[in-house]
Amino acid sequence: MSLTIDRALRDDTMATLERVSAERGAPEAATRIADLRAWIAGDLAEVESELAGIERGDDPMRGAAMHLLRQGGKRLRPMCVALAARVGTGFDRRARDLAVAAELIHDATLLHDDVVDLGDLRRGAPAARVIYGNTASIFAGDWLLVEGITRIRRTGFDDLLDRSLVVLRQMLAGEALQLAMRAKVPQGTEAYFQVVEGKTASLFRWALFAGARAGGLREADCALLEGYGAKLGVAFQVMDDVLDLVGDHAEMGKEAFSDLREGKLTHPLMVAVERDPRLRDLLIEALAEGDATDPSLHRAVSAALRSTGAADESRALAQRLVREAVATLHALPSGRARDALADVAVSMVDRRK
Amino acid sequence: MSLTIDRALRDDTMATLERVSAERGAPEAATRIADLRAWIAGDLAEVESELAGIERGDDPMRGAAMHLLRQGGKRLRPMCVALAARVGTGFDRRARDLAVAAELIHDATLLHDDVVDLGDLRRGAPAARVIYGNTASIFAGDWLLVEGITRIRRTGFDDLLDRSLVVLRQMLAGEALQLAMRAKVPQGTEAYFQVVEGKTASLFRWALFAGARAGGLREADCALLEGYGAKLGVAFQVMDDVLDLVGDHAEMGKEAFSDLREGKLTHPLMVAVERDPRLRDLLIEALAEGDATDPSLHRAVSAALRSTGAADESRALAQRLVREAVATLHALPSGRARDALADVAVSMVDRRK
Repeated sequence: MSLTIDRALRDDTMATLERVSAERGAPEAATRIADLRAWIAGDLAEVESELAGIERGDDPMRGAAMHLLRQGGKRLRPMCVALAARVGTGFDRRARDLAVAAELIHDATLLHDDVVDLGDLRRGAPAARVIYGNTASIFAGDWLLVEGITRIRRTGFDDLLDRSLVVLRQMLAGEALQLAMRAKVPQGTEAYFQVVEGKTASLFRWALFAGARAGGLREADCALLEGYGAKLGVAFQVMDDVLDLVGDHAEMGKEAFSDLREGKLTHPLMVAVERDPRLRDLLIEALAEGDATDPSLHRAVSAALRSTGAADESRALAQRLVREAVATLHALPSGRARDALADVAVSMVDRRK
Repeated sequence: MSLTIDRALRDDTMATLERVSAERGAPEAATRIADLRAWIAGDLAEVESELAGIERGDDPMRGAAMHLLRQGGKRLRPMCVALAARVGTGFDRRARDLAVAAELIHDATLLHDDVVDLGDLRRGAPAARVIYGNTASIFAGDWLLVEGITRIRRTGFDDLLDRSLVVLRQMLAGEALQLAMRAKVPQGTEAYFQVVEGKTASLFRWALFAGARAGGLREADCALLEGYGAKLGVAFQVMDDVLDLVGDHAEMGKEAFSDLREGKLTHPLMVAVERDPRLRDLLIEALAEGDATDPSLHRAVSAALRSTGAADESRALAQRLVREAVATLHALPSGRARDALADVAVSMVDRRK
């Protein structure tokens, strides 16, 4: 796969899927995605229009929020809502509110994460906190969270509201555990998966379940899509970890080794330290000194990732999760949306950003 | 009034009310508050018990949240919910959930405010961010916000949930406007009152309305108590502003001139700059240089507050608002709770912290 990509396509998820499918030699999938692209473009355009119009105002809080919203991004969570809804009766007004809410909640966490991590780049542009300040970004995150919950509430799906509040607690528990583990090198991957299930997978799970409910699917199918979302979310995060270490960072719009710089252990690193005890010692020392930004450390990590095959193992895990997720879809009503969900899952592990 | 106070009473709101009433020479009010204290102590103890038990866990996020919750504080918002509920059918399980929610939402804003303002002291102890870090405090604020909304939701009062989401947006709009005005010296008090109505009065308003609904009061009485809460909230903030400039800061458990240090204009200052153009120039210069922490500036401000009588004017405004608030109560069913609300209002302007 070519590492150079038309920048104009950078934030166009469907175009990326199409390209990915074509490049992995699955022309029939590429054709399907081209159809799907036309089919779902209207849904995503409605989401964008809602996001762009959530509130006018020129104070720094709204500036910070709108700055992030305008950067685009992959919009994976709204896409999950839309596709799950389309497995059922389709993407109506309530599904749109839920899709927008999923994106708003995700963006709220990004605003707070960037303050927390002192992140300078986000979605290929300076982070909101760099332009508008930490204060504006903290309030902007609070605001988008409230806007997200408000949209879920107004759909009238009380169970989705209750689930979203549980998911928010799980997301924060994941962040809290990640914070408690910061700069530590644990034995085993238990804590890692707890963090990922909270901070990443729970919102994907909700997005799929919410779309399914809005689409009027029966309980069993809602539960099935929720399970698909859980696996998709973990696969997404594991690939995110891989890309942080070996990805094309110019294309990703963020810095290399950013997780490591922030003292966060990622899946490939967890695997590498199991296989190479010297790397564990090196990391413990660097993290204890609060110096995980040293280029020589990054070179040593890169070398260990290659020699231990850790990045490949992480990729293999993500692929296994995606295969399992796709396998569950067979019980759903067949149709374009179901096929699209399979393609979305596959694209998770083929992505470069 | 003596400036030294038994520290053991510091966070005991009812004891403070009792003392204040006795000292301002209203023994019959003091007696009434002593009765009330026994009457409402159980309600507040239930709130404390709920707050103390919201979740066990030893990560930094929960550490930061529990640190703040354990510091106590005036618990004015839960008290407002409880008294409003007691105007009606009483303080039941749902009223308790609403009282706890009001405190959780307030505490969520304190956690974020301390990060935003780099506050070192809160409720007489080091701020959570000093002990647990900014990251933990940001997530802790998010968490308490979600816990608060969850409690409102579980009462089943859909209108209170919707109103709470509106209030949260108003609170954030107030914070956003305050941020936009930071280090500016506006003409007039319009922006000041907009900020106060958003960031302070809206939650008081909600607390009174919520208690009234839980107590089964008719719509007109709910609306009346909401109006009382709005006036009470503004009076409370104006007095907070006065105390920031002339209060006993050892007793208040926070630093003097903290609003000014943070570039926030307060009511007495707004009055003083209207009356003393030299103070306006001095402030504009100091704020433009980002140097509002200079002791000589604070001395000049203190002198201007005295010479212009600004602090007295702010106090008079708070007293007028309290009188108006108390006057509205007459239309409510008479009883202990109604009398208690009047006493609470009066205590707002007599407080020293």
